[in-house]
Amino acid sequence: MPLPTHVRIVEVGPRDGLQNEAQPISVTDKVQLVDALTAAGLGYIEVGSFVSPKWVPQMAGSAEVFAQIQRKPGVVYGALAPNLRGFEDALAAGVKEVAVFAAASEAFSRRNINCSISESLERFGPIMDAARQHGVTVRGYVSCVLGCPYEGHVAPEQVALVARELYAMGCYEVSLGDTIGTGTAGATRKMFEVVSKEVPREKLAGHFHDTYGQAVANIYASLLEGISVFDSSIAGLGGCPYAKGASGNVATEDVVYLLNGLGIDTGIDLDALMLAGQQICTVLGRPTGSRVAKARSAQ
Amino acid sequence: MPLPTHVRIVEVGPRDGLQNEAQPISVTDKVQLVDALTAAGLGYIEVGSFVSPKWVPQMAGSAEVFAQIQRKPGVVYGALAPNLRGFEDALAAGVKEVAVFAAASEAFSRRNINCSISESLERFGPIMDAARQHGVTVRGYVSCVLGCPYEGHVAPEQVALVARELYAMGCYEVSLGDTIGTGTAGATRKMFEVVSKEVPREKLAGHFHDTYGQAVANIYASLLEGISVFDSSIAGLGGCPYAKGASGNVATEDVVYLLNGLGIDTGIDLDALMLAGQQICTVLGRPTGSRVAKARSAQ
Repeated sequence: MPLPTHVRIVEVGPRDGLQNEAQPISVTDKVQLVDALTAAGLGYIEVGSFVSPKWVPQMAGSAEVFAQIQRKPGVVYGALAPNLRGFEDALAAGVKEVAVFAAASEAFSRRNINCSISESLERFGPIMDAARQHGVTVRGYVSCVLGCPYEGHVAPEQVALVARELYAMGCYEVSLGDTIGTGTAGATRKMFEVVSKEVPREKLAGHFHDTYGQAVANIYASLLEGISVFDSSIAGLGGCPYAKGASGNVATEDVVYLLNGLGIDTGIDLDALMLAGQQICTVLGRPTGSRVAKARSAQ
Repeated sequence: MPLPTHVRIVEVGPRDGLQNEAQPISVTDKVQLVDALTAAGLGYIEVGSFVSPKWVPQMAGSAEVFAQIQRKPGVVYGALAPNLRGFEDALAAGVKEVAVFAAASEAFSRRNINCSISESLERFGPIMDAARQHGVTVRGYVSCVLGCPYEGHVAPEQVALVARELYAMGCYEVSLGDTIGTGTAGATRKMFEVVSKEVPREKLAGHFHDTYGQAVANIYASLLEGISVFDSSIAGLGGCPYAKGASGNVATEDVVYLLNGLGIDTGIDLDALMLAGQQICTVLGRPTGSRVAKARSAQ
């Protein structure tokens, strides 16, 4: 299979990234981050999450962020909507695309969202209906696709089942996440091979964590399987909630560096991207998680 | 091409790694490191370098290290011998395998070893003769195979020329090094494709630096090209002399994790390997450069 000529990067730093940083940051800083990412040429930015700030204080103010960002035509500004209440808040904030979140592991689903996988899928029904009614597109996430912190091994067939359900209920794209970063290249290829029997490859995305240093290799392996959409986080924001101090989301800079090297178009300006990374790291007072950014700034 | 079923790891931490750490460590600590690596199941350990301690103080005492390590039958304990004087010192220390070092970039050769590529190859002649005479095997390194800090792009054909010369003069294996870590997966495959027209694939090794976060992906790309020998450094020892604070040699732990995931045998015990990494990081007072070690220790 030839490598794709174009890859779409879904920038999850402002949501998945910041949500897993210890310290909440201001609405102003979030807006600056999103605007810098827009300026760098990203075509999809996950801006926030409509969830109670009591549970996730880092995501407080998502409606204000949506109100203040400079929207560039053609760029998708998405938000996580974990339930119907969240969806309605997102809608009120002018959000045109939301994401819903399921797990491929029963144990993870129960511990993380407090219900079984099938119950979680059922709960998405009203969100899907409301989204259709309001012309809002819905992206689906499946977590733990290459391993679970509680169950260990997760069968690709199980991932395929959950992905198929999300696709069948109307998610236009399903992002498959190696939440704990334990997957390696062969398992990644096998997983996409199995899942693509249920959902077309062009409707699948890869979401890799670099906790075990495998994310860039797993993205290359996914490209070899015809996958052309990848989630990543500016400066590697987020870390790993299952291994404190370890890496989480793969850094967008490192993914773009790979894709540039492979001659695959992303529409992203790496220098502007690194500027966005530097700014948010200064705000957070943390070093970048991007090796490319480290190497470039050390020169 | 099917993936290899077995991979040989050449552990370069005690030489290439420690040589690029700021602080020299004691002979006792070096011996403990080599013994711990032997215990972890490494089949090849580059123990030291026979070079003037005036130029490379980190490599002082290599003869003493060789005298004190516990040699396990079947394990190769190699040393860098940059010139005939170094070779003779290595021989006197009981070394049975040495490595010589050339560059694929003319500018790097001149700045790093103060002579042209062809002059450097000529200087290896007497070492090769002496090695043959004493039954010492010689491994060749080529640096800057995917980019040069001074010249930028390096043509794969140029790498092939240098590799062919080293192989023709008697190096039983030629290790191709991405010294500055700028290579990506496609360039890696192309480079091995071109070089393997001059030197058989089974006589080639990959030596990747993780400076831009690409090393594990490049190793996976190399495996897809039929390469089955890789150099790596315990705990990612070494750093990058061309970008202070950035990563250098890929961490052995992260490579073994990839290979375990792919079901490729290495004979290495990952737990024992991580113990060796912990010990040397304690000695050096630096954090590990291995993402696997970080993730495991954070759990």
